[in-house]
This record gives sequence, structure tokens and C-alpha cells, in this order.
Amino acid sequence: MIKDMKKTDIAKQSLAIHKKLQGKVSIVPKAPVRNKADLAIYYTPGVGAVSSYLAEHKDMVRDYTMKRNTVAVVSDGSAVLGLGNIGPEGALPVMEGKAMLFRSLAGIDAFPIVLDTQDTEEIIRTIKNIAPVFGGINLEDIAAPRCFEIEKRLQEMLDIPVMHDDQHGTATIVLAGLINAFRVVKKDMASSRIVVAGAGAAGNAIAELLMLHGVGDLVIVDSRGIISRNRSDIDGHKRILAEKTNHSGLEGSLADAFSGADAFVGVSKGGTVSAHDIRRMNNDAIVFALANPTPEIMPDEARSAGAAVIATGRSDFENQINNSLGFPGIFRGALDHQVRVITDAMLIKAARNIAALVKRPVRNRIIPSTFDKRVVPAVAKAIR
Amino acid sequence: MIKDMKKTDIAKQSLAIHKKLQGKVSIVPKAPVRNKADLAIYYTPGVGAVSSYLAEHKDMVRDYTMKRNTVAVVSDGSAVLGLGNIGPEGALPVMEGKAMLFRSLAGIDAFPIVLDTQDTEEIIRTIKNIAPVFGGINLEDIAAPRCFEIEKRLQEMLDIPVMHDDQHGTATIVLAGLINAFRVVKKDMASSRIVVAGAGAAGNAIAELLMLHGVGDLVIVDSRGIISRNRSDIDGHKRILAEKTNHSGLEGSLADAFSGADAFVGVSKGGTVSAHDIRRMNNDAIVFALANPTPEIMPDEARSAGAAVIATGRSDFENQINNSLGFPGIFRGALDHQVRVITDAMLIKAARNIAALVKRPVRNRIIPSTFDKRVVPAVAKAIR
Repeated sequence: MIKDMKKTDIAKQSLAIHKKLQGKVSIVPKAPVRNKADLAIYYTPGVGAVSSYLAEHKDMVRDYTMKRNTVAVVSDGSAVLGLGNIGPEGALPVMEGKAMLFRSLAGIDAFPIVLDTQDTEEIIRTIKNIAPVFGGINLEDIAAPRCFEIEKRLQEMLDIPVMHDDQHGTATIVLAGLINAFRVVKKDMASSRIVVAGAGAAGNAIAELLMLHGVGDLVIVDSRGIISRNRSDIDGHKRILAEKTNHSGLEGSLADAFSGADAFVGVSKGGTVSAHDIRRMNNDAIVFALANPTPEIMPDEARSAGAAVIATGRSDFENQINNSLGFPGIFRGALDHQVRVITDAMLIKAARNIAALVKRPVRNRIIPSTFDKRVVPAVAKAIR
Repeated sequence: MIKDMKKTDIAKQSLAIHKKLQGKVSIVPKAPVRNKADLAIYYTPGVGAVSSYLAEHKDMVRDYTMKRNTVAVVSDGSAVLGLGNIGPEGALPVMEGKAMLFRSLAGIDAFPIVLDTQDTEEIIRTIKNIAPVFGGINLEDIAAPRCFEIEKRLQEMLDIPVMHDDQHGTATIVLAGLINAFRVVKKDMASSRIVVAGAGAAGNAIAELLMLHGVGDLVIVDSRGIISRNRSDIDGHKRILAEKTNHSGLEGSLADAFSGADAFVGVSKGGTVSAHDIRRMNNDAIVFALANPTPEIMPDEARSAGAAVIATGRSDFENQINNSLGFPGIFRGALDHQVRVITDAMLIKAARNIAALVKRPVRNRIIPSTFDKRVVPAVAKAIR
């Protein structure tokens, strides 16, 4: 009841403040333009010398323009927060919020682009066409499986880094959290079984990063049950997951996946996991219930059922697994080191660097705060 | 010689300052994000309430997001300054400069978009797809005749104002200058003949605005000579100009157009007009030699040949006809009054308002300064 009131309060406050601000970011000159002399330097005729030079030396554009430090935050509004396909208008406040964080946390100039199309080819062409002004592209809240194709094709086309944060940013922070959670329970991830609920953008990327990092076995569960080689209703990235995970050939529902699991990572739907499910896990169970705003299981219920380390995506519980720990530093590093492709190896290193910032992880503190000034440099130095 | 040295100095300074700044605009939060409480309001979970609301009330997006005050400055780099088709990298510093001016002069958040395509259909689709975040589109430095089609189609498609500044912004300031130049020489524009050299983006728009405002006769000259009904080598917008202008059926070269002309407006190429040409004009000739950086005829030469009022596009001569007198106020008005289409009637009113700011125009002062604080409000109130 108190929780609900608080939520309503935040919603009301947020609506009021958004209405007052009418936009959360502003585009401002980096130098004053006060008179004709300034105009002659920054605009005509002086700018002509810069334009002529860059026309001849296109590869120098980072040295003379905003490209060096500017990232596009692009969404088609098809998978926004937990709200689903709400379109560009609904997506815009989220992208503006992300632009605020890029600047506040990592000094990056980020501009929100919300698209009036959800067609894969149109999205790819549009982003390719506007790319010259940007030093990096942060794809955001684009539904699976479209997001995989868009990211892959743009990475091939463009000479700047392109990353879908819902996939790789999320996976990086989940890995950072798991590294420390396993330290707390004194288990080795390389010989443990981890269950991932959700096989969309986030679930797929988490699975890929965990496999590369090294995990005993991984069991992925989608809305129809455990992903296994015997499933005839899967194709695309799920078919690939079926080949690479679930070594013991488990079949059945999400409930069946819990038996013998050491850790659970939920990036699925609120309220889908019961205390009974948690009790089927091994001792010292790790439970990351990351669905937003309602976790797969509430922390107090998971704790009562014996979970040792519990994390959610929410700021009002301990151990918040939040993307804002990742994307600012990931793009800071990519821009500073002129990284063309952000690889999984870089992200694993970033995850380890984040985890290492918590010297002595304990049950209720496995991850640093978004506002810990050490986070962005620690992540950025891994992206090179 | 001293002039040339000055130009080289400005070029060198401009290159050095651009290299130091590495981008002339920055994207900054309008409120600080310092802690979890701020995060909860501006980002998750608070932003979810705003997103849900806007998903249901798309028409309220201006009240809760940056759309209300944000303009895209879009170029394909095909006709940049006097430099021609130099591509997106070369165009970017100009668009950044324009974004600086939008903010400094009119408090508008303007973001530069330089395109990796010069295909008309691709440009239209790309701008349409990114339009949801913007309250207006300023097309810039796009070559004719492509610019006409792009502007027209986007105006039809979008519910926000779209204006190609090289056309309509230029035409507005030229008209403002001519109104006062005619006052200085005490002639009536409605019974005068005006020659326009250049039938591209700017020339065409100047012709259209002058005709609407009312002018005795208008003679347009392109690179092949006077545009007349008898020309068999013209089509598109030039064919339309041939029908609507040149009532006396003049034919021949640019030199032939000067006989009996009261005013000359050059938006063509430097050095194409001689003292001899000016001498063929009527008494108290008005000469707007606007080619950049080299005017069609240098002011001292035009003066020696008897011109009464002389204007150029340059800041180092008197009477600078500069677009920065127009676009900030035009978009300020369009955003504030939620204007969907910026009409020629509005622009004529804006031109009259600019002219009226010079209470007693004299030969060397027919136009206010870009930094005159009265300009933006005077223009903005006309755009409604």
C-alpha cells in the first residue's frame, strides 16, 4: 500500500516536472556568439575554411566537429520500458532521459532520435543516412527479433560503433552483478547452472555474454518453456541458443528449469516466479528478478524461500541492476579510443571492471552505484 | 592586399578555434541528475508515467518533451556556402554554426543533421522518419532543383513547418533590404524594374516573394541569359518564371538586362557584373551584389559607376544582407504559434517588420544588425 502510494507520487511528480521542463535536454553553443567578429569565426566567412578543409580531408571530421563526442539514441518505440509498442511520442521522454545521463555521467553529447517507422529496412536506411554527424549509435527499446538484424547490418555498414543497449548494455551489467553474486556465495560460475527467463533482446545477449565468460550450463526459457534442441516451434536466434545451451537436454516449463539451478536471471514478465520455484534451486541461490516495474518475484518472497543474493531492476530495492552503469562508460570508451565495433570481449572486461569496484561484495551490495564516479572510467578503459 | 590578409587571418583563426572546440554545440540536461531520486523522476520509473500518457495522447507531445523547441538543420552537403557539393563532412561545421545562432539569437534548440545521401527520395524518407522529435525542419544548402521537391513533399507529409532557408530566408531578407533601399531612393517598387541574377534556390524564391509583394517588372537571368517565354532550353521552375516575369519580353545576356533597371539583385557568381552594366541602369540604382565570398561587383566599383544603395552578403561592407536576420525569428514564431506551414504572406510581413526597425534608412544603413535584440521578436510576430 505504501509502495503503491510512493509509485503514484513519483508518477505524479514526474508528469508535473516533465510538463514544466518541456524537454529534458537543450542544445547550447560551446562559445558565445555576441557580435560580428564571433559570427565571422564560427559562421561565415570563417567556417568556409573549415568546410573546405573537411571536404578534402573527410577523415579529420572528428577533429573539427561535434562528431567526436556525439551519440544518437535511436528508438522506433516498439519495446519501450515494460510498456511495449507505444510509438515514437511515448518513447521520446525515455530517450531524453538517456541523453541527460550520457551527459551527466560521461560528458557525452547524446541526441534522441525517435522514428516514425518500425520497418527494419527503413530504420537501417534512416540511421545510415543520418550517421555522418554521430560518433556512435545507441539503439534503444527496439523489439526483437528486428533489433538483431538492425544492429548487425548497421555495424557492417558504418565506421562508427553501433550498440543496442537493451541487449549488450543489459548483459554487461548482469554479468558484473553475477560475478560478485558468485563471489558472495563462494561458487564458481564455470561449474554452475544458470537459468535465464526471457529469450528476447536482453535474454539472448545475456546468454551469449555468459557463454563467452564461461558458465557450467545455461538454460534459456521463453514464454513457451525451456529452449531445447527438440523444440520444433523455434527458429532464428532461438534455434542457435538451442544448439549452444542446455547441455543436459532439459525440457518443460519455467518451473522445471529451476531444479538444480544455482542462479536465475529473469528478463521476462513480472510475477512469473513463485517461492516454490526458488526452493527447487540449489543452496545459496542467486535470484536476479529484473522485470520492470514488477519483478518476476518480489525480493522478500525470494528471501523467505531461501535465496541468498537477490537483485532487481528497481532503485527502491537493494542491488539494482541498471543499464546506466554501462552505456555511459561503454560509449565514453568507444568514442575516446575510436572503437569501430564494441565486441563481447570488451564488454566482459567492462563487466569485470565494474564488479572489481566492489572490493568486498556482500549479499546486499554486489554492484556499485550509478553515481559512483569510478564507474565510467572503469568501463571506458575496457572499451578499446 | 590588406583585405586578402584579413581573410587568411580569419580562415586560420577559424580553423584553430574549430580544432580547439571540437564541436560548436553541446547537448546538456535542463536539470541536474545527481542521485537516485533524480533518476527516479527523469528516468525510470517516473518517466514511465510520461511515456504511457504520451502513448495515449500523442498530440500532447509538445507539452512534455523537447519537440516544442527543437529544430533540425538538415543538409545533404550539395550546395554549401559558395563551395558547392562538398558532402556531409564539409557541411557539418556550417550546420553547427547555424545551431549556435538558433540558440544564441532565438533560444531555439537546433540540431545539425548532415546526410549520407543526395537522393531526393532518400532525403524525403529520412527526414520524415526522424521528424517526431522535431518541432520544425530547416532545410539548408541543398542544391536546386532537388530542394524544391524535397521541401514541397515534406510540407505535405509532416504536421510541422519545413523551410528551405536558402530559398525563403534569403528572399525575406532581400525583400526587407529592398523595401528600405527603395525608400532611400524615393522610388516605388510597384512601378520599378528589378533584375535578379541567378535562378537557383535563392533566385527563384526572391522572384516569387517580390512578385507577391508587388513589383513593376521582374527580369530573371540564369547562366545562359535572360529568362523569357522564347527560351527553349528551360523547364520546371524556370518555365514557370518565364511565364510570370519579364512582361516586356526582354531577351539577351545579363548585360542586356541592366538597361532601364532600377534595382539589381545578384545571387549568382562573383565578378560577373561590370561598372559598364551598372551605368546602364536607371538613376539612383540599387545594387545588391550578394554572391559570397566575392560579390558580383565590388561595392567601390558599383559606387563609382553611380549606384545609390549597395548591399552585399559580407560583414566587412555596409548593408550586409544575411540570413541570420531571418531564420531565428521565423522558426521562433513558427514554434511559438504552432504554425504548420510558413507562407509567403507571413514572410512578406516579416520582411516589412525587419525593414520597419530602421526608422530612417540611409544609403549605408538599410537593414538592422543580426545582434539587434528587436529583430527576432519583430520577425516572430509575423509568423502566425
